Amino acid sequence: MKIVITGGAGFLGQLLVRALAARGSLTDAEGRERRIEHIVAVDQSQIGKLFVDERVDYVVGDIAASGFIEHVMEGDTDSVFHLAAVVSGAAEADFDLGMRVNLDGTRAILNACRKQSGRPKLVFASSVAVFGGELPPVVTDATQPTPQTSYGAQKLMSELLIGDCTRKGFIDGRSVRLPTIVVRPGKPNAAASSFASGIIREPLAGEISACPVAAATAMWVLSPQSAISSFIHAHELPAAAWGARRALNLPGLTVTVAQMLEALRAVGGDAAVARVKMEPDERIAAIVNTWPARFETPRADALGFPRDRDVESIVRAYARAYVSG
Amino acid sequence: MKIVITGGAGFLGQLLVRALAARGSLTDAEGRERRIEHIVAVDQSQIGKLFVDERVDYVVGDIAASGFIEHVMEGDTDSVFHLAAVVSGAAEADFDLGMRVNLDGTRAILNACRKQSGRPKLVFASSVAVFGGELPPVVTDATQPTPQTSYGAQKLMSELLIGDCTRKGFIDGRSVRLPTIVVRPGKPNAAASSFASGIIREPLAGEISACPVAAATAMWVLSPQSAISSFIHAHELPAAAWGARRALNLPGLTVTVAQMLEALRAVGGDAAVARVKMEPDERIAAIVNTWPARFETPRADALGFPRDRDVESIVRAYARAYVSG
Repeated sequence: MKIVITGGAGFLGQLLVRALAARGSLTDAEGRERRIEHIVAVDQSQIGKLFVDERVDYVVGDIAASGFIEHVMEGDTDSVFHLAAVVSGAAEADFDLGMRVNLDGTRAILNACRKQSGRPKLVFASSVAVFGGELPPVVTDATQPTPQTSYGAQKLMSELLIGDCTRKGFIDGRSVRLPTIVVRPGKPNAAASSFASGIIREPLAGEISACPVAAATAMWVLSPQSAISSFIHAHELPAAAWGARRALNLPGLTVTVAQMLEALRAVGGDAAVARVKMEPDERIAAIVNTWPARFETPRADALGFPRDRDVESIVRAYARAYVSG
Repeated sequence: MKIVITGGAGFLGQLLVRALAARGSLTDAEGRERRIEHIVAVDQSQIGKLFVDERVDYVVGDIAASGFIEHVMEGDTDSVFHLAAVVSGAAEADFDLGMRVNLDGTRAILNACRKQSGRPKLVFASSVAVFGGELPPVVTDATQPTPQTSYGAQKLMSELLIGDCTRKGFIDGRSVRLPTIVVRPGKPNAAASSFASGIIREPLAGEISACPVAAATAMWVLSPQSAISSFIHAHELPAAAWGARRALNLPGLTVTVAQMLEALRAVGGDAAVARVKMEPDERIAAIVNTWPARFETPRADALGFPRDRDVESIVRAYARAYVSG
């Protein structure tokens, strides 16, 4: 089978490429276990060292550019993992760029899916940023998404399109709403949530990190490992398990900045925590504070999606994988 | 002030043009009462006799065509009433056409709004078709929209865009979710709800009408007069009354087909009811049955949106206005 991964050179994309290559097979839309013969990892650029495997190709391009993704998907793509996005801070700063990549990019992928001979499976990396504004104290599976960022609105519009195209039989779509992913390795990015990884990652590397939100700020977080497991689990669940509702809040952990810093202390000591500087940034706080931090996810739990144990385990797993010495 | 009405040659569009011309003024986005100097009614075609007034211009064109609506809105448009749409049955039959008009058309209008020197008000005719699938027995203001038709998905995506563009300060947007409008005069159309008017209109004109759904089928309905009042009320409410939530379920009446036929009997007698033939159509029923029929609308009620008295009054008002003799 042929698999296309957008955002495939990114952090999560690379973890997913590795996980799929190691796994070796997936279930197609007809319910058949199929050997993975070809993975095409698409990204707007290739930064850093990429995972090399004879089954994996890398293609650089703009998913919203006319004809690009259609060309990439030619030759009967069986499954797409759509991870590419303009992140929250950038989509807020440049409305048109966010619309182009986050909505038109999804549309281009859906149009390309419709040209396949089969009915591709599509796993979409959505976000809890679809929620915002006045919310109940705990967000449930019945809570109405009311995005208060352009990123959240664009993710929700994409979910709606994926749901409708699934209903129409064009694809077999599954959207998972990711909590904030911690800990991301590498450099800070333009996501408003970037600091949540930064305040762990930089101190463990001996560097200073600015925290733009208050210590009491709570977030709904997920480890990268659980995110990858969730993508694959979302793909593997039978269509009947999803039914008509093709978007899902993923399980996560409610963690305050203060709790993240305690986990940092447990793993990196007081010296690490001392490297975090509280530097309030209203622009970032305004975005982050629209995101809900407390969820109940009975549907995802019943469907068997993974849940992290606690934030200290997440920080420890990061340190094991990425911190030398 | 200059007002643009899309779908302006349609039934509701024409009622709105007349109502605005009679009213003579509206409140602009800065809260100032302004004299209506120019109304541009845009539509894809002009069928039948149009309301003539020196302040009203008619322009034929495709709102999704590049540059068209931008050209129409040149010269500082203060307010837009966006009523144009590919209706539910047609959007279900032709996915791409629905996307083009119902989503891309809205985007074209929003882009044109951003080019005005002021911040235009935008009233959007959305639909209760944003709801569907598994729903609570009564839909409330907190119920999560889960459209099960392409039309509903496209209306909801447009609402989200309008909400986000309002939040960004590009426009002052207000989306009202219309119940099924009864009684529409004229001819049947491709809306799945077309029969709801047909089973009143045709028998009162001495013609046979087919009813494609069961007599027990309940719908959430609104009279054309209340729809027009709601558009204008939505426009006139101060921005603060809307707050961050720019989409609203309108008040309506829960009415079964059987109750509509009893209202028909009260107005047109047994002979009229005998002209309705029950002819089940699964395609139509499948769409109509995804729409919720029972709502509680405390938010719209508190904001002062109008409510029809009962279905017999609606049928009587129709007969007075449109049935000769």
